[in-house]
Amino acid sequence: MKPIIAMQTDFGVGGGSTMRGTCLKVDPELEVYEISHSIEKFNIKAAARSLYHIVPYWPAGTVFVSVIDPGVGTSRRASVALLNNGSYVVTPDNGALTLLLESPGIRAVRTIDETVNRLKGTEKVSIFHGRDLFAYCAARLASGIIGFEGVGPEYPVEEIVRYPEPGYTCSDGSVSGSVTGIMRTFGNLETGIPVSAAEASGILAGNDVRVTISSSSGIVFDRTIPYRASFGWVPEGDEVLYNGSDGDLGIGINLGNFAQRYGLDPEDPLVITVRKE
Amino acid sequence: MKPIIAMQTDFGVGGGSTMRGTCLKVDPELEVYEISHSIEKFNIKAAARSLYHIVPYWPAGTVFVSVIDPGVGTSRRASVALLNNGSYVVTPDNGALTLLLESPGIRAVRTIDETVNRLKGTEKVSIFHGRDLFAYCAARLASGIIGFEGVGPEYPVEEIVRYPEPGYTCSDGSVSGSVTGIMRTFGNLETGIPVSAAEASGILAGNDVRVTISSSSGIVFDRTIPYRASFGWVPEGDEVLYNGSDGDLGIGINLGNFAQRYGLDPEDPLVITVRKE
Amino acid sequence: MKPIIAMQTDFGVGGGSTMRGTCLKVDPELEVYEISHSIEKFNIKAAARSLYHIVPYWPAGTVFVSVIDPGVGTSRRASVALLNNGSYVVTPDNGALTLLLESPGIRAVRTIDETVNRLKGTEKVSIFHGRDLFAYCAARLASGIIGFEGVGPEYPVEEIVRYPEPGYTCSDGSVSGSVTGIMRTFGNLETGIPVSAAEASGILAGNDVRVTISSSSGIVFDRTIPYRASFGWVPEGDEVLYNGSDGDLGIGINLGNFAQRYGLDPEDPLVITVRKE
Repeated sequence: MKPIIAMQTDFGVGGGSTMRGTCLKVDPELEVYEISHSIEKFNIKAAARSLYHIVPYWPAGTVFVSVIDPGVGTSRRASVALLNNGSYVVTPDNGALTLLLESPGIRAVRTIDETVNRLKGTEKVSIFHGRDLFAYCAARLASGIIGFEGVGPEYPVEEIVRYPEPGYTCSDGSVSGSVTGIMRTFGNLETGIPVSAAEASGILAGNDVRVTISSSSGIVFDRTIPYRASFGWVPEGDEVLYNGSDGDLGIGINLGNFAQRYGLDPEDPLVITVRKE
Repeated sequence: MKPIIAMQTDFGVGGGSTMRGTCLKVDPELEVYEISHSIEKFNIKAAARSLYHIVPYWPAGTVFVSVIDPGVGTSRRASVALLNNGSYVVTPDNGALTLLLESPGIRAVRTIDETVNRLKGTEKVSIFHGRDLFAYCAARLASGIIGFEGVGPEYPVEEIVRYPEPGYTCSDGSVSGSVTGIMRTFGNLETGIPVSAAEASGILAGNDVRVTISSSSGIVFDRTIPYRASFGWVPEGDEVLYNGSDGDLGIGINLGNFAQRYGLDPEDPLVITVRKE
Repeated sequence: MKPIIAMQTDFGVGGGSTMRGTCLKVDPELEVYEISHSIEKFNIKAAARSLYHIVPYWPAGTVFVSVIDPGVGTSRRASVALLNNGSYVVTPDNGALTLLLESPGIRAVRTIDETVNRLKGTEKVSIFHGRDLFAYCAARLASGIIGFEGVGPEYPVEEIVRYPEPGYTCSDGSVSGSVTGIMRTFGNLETGIPVSAAEASGILAGNDVRVTISSSSGIVFDRTIPYRASFGWVPEGDEVLYNGSDGDLGIGINLGNFAQRYGLDPEDPLVITVRKE
């Protein structure tokens, strides 16, 4: 069975259709799935977070194609990373691999050799590497036309572009960290604070907790709220702290939208502190 | 050939990608299709209507996964229903099965046994049953790892949660019923009045008819309009009554948006009466 | 291996799910891909442009289904076109085939015989040919139940409905043509001016060029800007002329939205002239 291809871009709905076609033209037996073409435009951190959330839940060996590529056609590297779980990520090396370096880890990385792994006839086009380079190379890799060595020259994993990641701190009865994302549909906040860190600080689901959130312009939220297993354990319209789907703390409103109620901007750096009451 | 999996959620574009991955991780040979991740947020009736519209047009044996789940992680049942046509629906039992009880009918229903049919390692997460329970269990069922009995304990079909469905009335020359939905892109109204009921009342395509629509705040539309086979049989911008795609009457505007023109709110209960002129 | 089915409609997200089901019900072994259900509503030229962009990048033999069908249920022809590359397009013959006549060219065209190639039980429905006629007929063709002759009666390619296409003009040091589309997510303009025509006029990437854009109400843009390989070769926020992904000139803003900045309306006819400085 050939590996699955799974794609994410910021091209908008319908934007990946020539990428899928290009894969199927290389090998019509490939299975090409779309993760999303609605990653926030030009947002490399959103690309990185999405990969980090998704990679562990797809079969080992999956070939991910991620094209959030504000520097398309310039000197940034076009790369294929081999992950520790055996999956691949085909992407501009612009920071999108940052969180995968941490987990599951990156075993090796190669630059795509355009003289071999570029769709023929597109040499004059520099704005659509998603189709001409990333999808095409991914399909050749997934179909077995090339092996990982056939991608192009290897370079040190240490050279992979990464953006600084905010950490978290914990003390007895308190944890503090960053808001790492806002879920678009529901408006819940994702944090970079592991549930295990909260537990180690004595903060346990079932208790009430003091949550303080600050933006660059001051405190935007400061209340005692329940820490529960899920939304439905608090009355409709109430705030709740919960265990997020990837092992970090999350905060939301039962049947409501937290980010909207408090006017939070996904681009504003937010700091969250949770204290035992 | 293994059954197809088809998924709908209210998670927003891209929201189902770990659900697809989870299915493929159970069995990479499964075919996993996405119906939509844009069902209206928290709207169980919209989930029910979508299933009702879609189920008859997919192969018998399809495993549908429907996750519109405002009570995720609380005591609502997580269930698998076996339909009379041999297809399955994996869903929170929160009303989403209401219209399928009527057609094609539900043969049996079981609660998902979390000790067996839950993705390992997600025990501390209670907010993402779409991935950890529904997709995972659906994939095990579709791949043949478990049979229907392997889902978990059966419970009586009579216990399935249902919401009250508005009926329709007809007399000689007149039919009356509810607006059951508004088509998002085109703004057409779907009604709960079967074409066959209109015919029995002597209301036939080709004639002009009096259509009256009332909301909670009074009459919002009251005009004589053509009843035709399709939109293009009336001039651009004119209203038209037509036979909807599932055998009920529909009302729209040729190349226009009915709901928008008359300021109709999908959440407002609307009553429609059609009279022979 | 059976041909792939690839679908585009203006039905909105989730709108094609019964079309996919209908295909799989005809033959569950078919691979049914969605290009987009978000083509602009009722916009036949957008349908034509999308087909023109996409067709060359999918495997020869693909069966495309395109349903942007403002005249559904009226007398417009429901057709299947056989392209010169061996692919098929199943579509209302309402102008959607215009650009394919030029490239890759249309070898033959047939009207769908509704007595044979219409989903049984839908005879009273005239508003959903996407499901009942186009998807159903496409699936029968892709699965080999019918050959091309089995679609229905042939008619002359010359009778295919086409809309007038704007041309382009070039002279020494200058090319002029139309804006043919605006990319929704990024706001870049697509033009109908081939890169080869620009080259023949002595306008070459690397130079600065004078770009003038006029709408029906006058000049909307008139500046000297760089002509570069891609966006990232100009500073953030600057305009750039580049080679578009299908061999025509394009214009955009590095990390910005050209159409938004200059308030351009996709429905307004825009003329663009590029002059050598």
